[in-house]
Amino acid sequence: MGDIQARVEAALGRLLPAPEVVPQRLHQAIRYAVLGGGKRVRPLLAFAAGDLAGADISRVEIVACAVECIHAYSLVHDDLPCMDNDVLRRGRPTCHVEYDEVTALLVGDSLQAFAFQLLAEHRLAEDAAVQLEMLRILAAACGSRGMAGGQAIDLGSVGKGLTLTELEHMHIRKTGALIRASVALGARCGAMLSGDELEHLDRYAKLVGLAFQVVDDVLDCEASTATLGKTAGKDAAANKPTYVSVLGVGGARALAEELRADAQDALSSFGAKAKRLAALADFVVLRKF
Amino acid sequence: MGDIQARVEAALGRLLPAPEVVPQRLHQAIRYAVLGGGKRVRPLLAFAAGDLAGADISRVEIVACAVECIHAYSLVHDDLPCMDNDVLRRGRPTCHVEYDEVTALLVGDSLQAFAFQLLAEHRLAEDAAVQLEMLRILAAACGSRGMAGGQAIDLGSVGKGLTLTELEHMHIRKTGALIRASVALGARCGAMLSGDELEHLDRYAKLVGLAFQVVDDVLDCEASTATLGKTAGKDAAANKPTYVSVLGVGGARALAEELRADAQDALSSFGAKAKRLAALADFVVLRKF
Repeated sequence: MGDIQARVEAALGRLLPAPEVVPQRLHQAIRYAVLGGGKRVRPLLAFAAGDLAGADISRVEIVACAVECIHAYSLVHDDLPCMDNDVLRRGRPTCHVEYDEVTALLVGDSLQAFAFQLLAEHRLAEDAAVQLEMLRILAAACGSRGMAGGQAIDLGSVGKGLTLTELEHMHIRKTGALIRASVALGARCGAMLSGDELEHLDRYAKLVGLAFQVVDDVLDCEASTATLGKTAGKDAAANKPTYVSVLGVGGARALAEELRADAQDALSSFGAKAKRLAALADFVVLRKF
Repeated sequence: MGDIQARVEAALGRLLPAPEVVPQRLHQAIRYAVLGGGKRVRPLLAFAAGDLAGADISRVEIVACAVECIHAYSLVHDDLPCMDNDVLRRGRPTCHVEYDEVTALLVGDSLQAFAFQLLAEHRLAEDAAVQLEMLRILAAACGSRGMAGGQAIDLGSVGKGLTLTELEHMHIRKTGALIRASVALGARCGAMLSGDELEHLDRYAKLVGLAFQVVDDVLDCEASTATLGKTAGKDAAANKPTYVSVLGVGGARALAEELRADAQDALSSFGAKAKRLAALADFVVLRKF
């Protein structure tokens, strides 16, 4: 995992415009927002799915950088004063605190475009039609029926008591959509899997995405700001419904375990070929930050 | 022109998620930001370039909607309090005034993704590789070396006296990049033009993009808020360098005329086939709003 994280960090550093490219301040802020931190969960999932599909690592690397740029953009916009108004991210000042609000807005806007540019300008599949499908998957995951839509539901839920099903619907969009796209894109860098195989993988990704969010809610409640590198306890402070507020800490932990078991189960037909994906399901649930 | 504007309006209404799709408020705000107004200059350019290349109109329609969604997203973000803090656009309250700031942020984010989704999920060229090139062109036009970068330079220029060359460099990115992409994408919906022909078209688009901005600066200074449907005089109020502040109104008008003549000249090798593009260069310079 450390190898892949280092590889993704190096690739992002190489692919992103250099800090001296005009407009310099914007490019410096983009690099600040993307480089030097993060668990890189989405790239790890893309690599593990690519590994399962026997994909060329240089292709998966591009996909991994694209999904991480989308993730970084979403964090920068989420942290803005009009959204979560947060000052700490990955143990450092958030982008709008380190630079300014307008720059942070443009950093997010630029990173979204950059992710699509990466997928369009590098050769990622033998068949260009498969690559178009990859672009379609990422675009749908980012849009109003995916990540951005989940964010809108999240912000509309402040002070409301959501049911478990409503909470799930929100998170399937807000964090789940990009996690599913990461797995789907990584897999499509390799030999074409069958429709059934892609469905198993998508089921795995959906479960891991939900588990990720359940664990995030537990950690937000139990871990310290220093450990998380971002402000702890902010969901409760913002009166947002979370898995902990709906199920309690014990119930949320039990749900995460259940999702982990189901995710492993979704991989069963792949056997040992899926060992990296299986390890990531464990990592997502057992992580401490 | 009215026919194409109506066609684009209808296509956008059909392609954008319906207002009752979850999250409803976000989708209503997206439709508010895109539908019911605007000169649709970029769609008109895409259609004119498609006409030159003998393109299937149903393909050009998708491209036209994609570039218009990018344009609409850029207006929504530009109008935000941290950017231009504007309350009036297309004769109506801006998106963050009609809805709220967070919704406007997510409207822009969603529309950017939606534009790429349109280009990825509809068949726009016989050869999927050409379609990938179209996605690459749009992504590059939107990013930190295109529109978003131009916006960053613009905001960094407040209170500074830019030279004519610096002003041009800013506008080539800020408005020019998407106008060039509109022409390039429209043309690529049709029979493949030669490299020389694509270069002539790009030169035309670059000149029209600059002319558009020069005229915008003149109108911002001379026309009323009622005529423009957006706040007049705001560049001068914000102490931003414009073609009028650098050249005076007479100098700016003369420059627009010069750019119009050069744009017509760039089309000369196409003869009568380029008559719609030629008419649009006139429209951009002679418009009153």
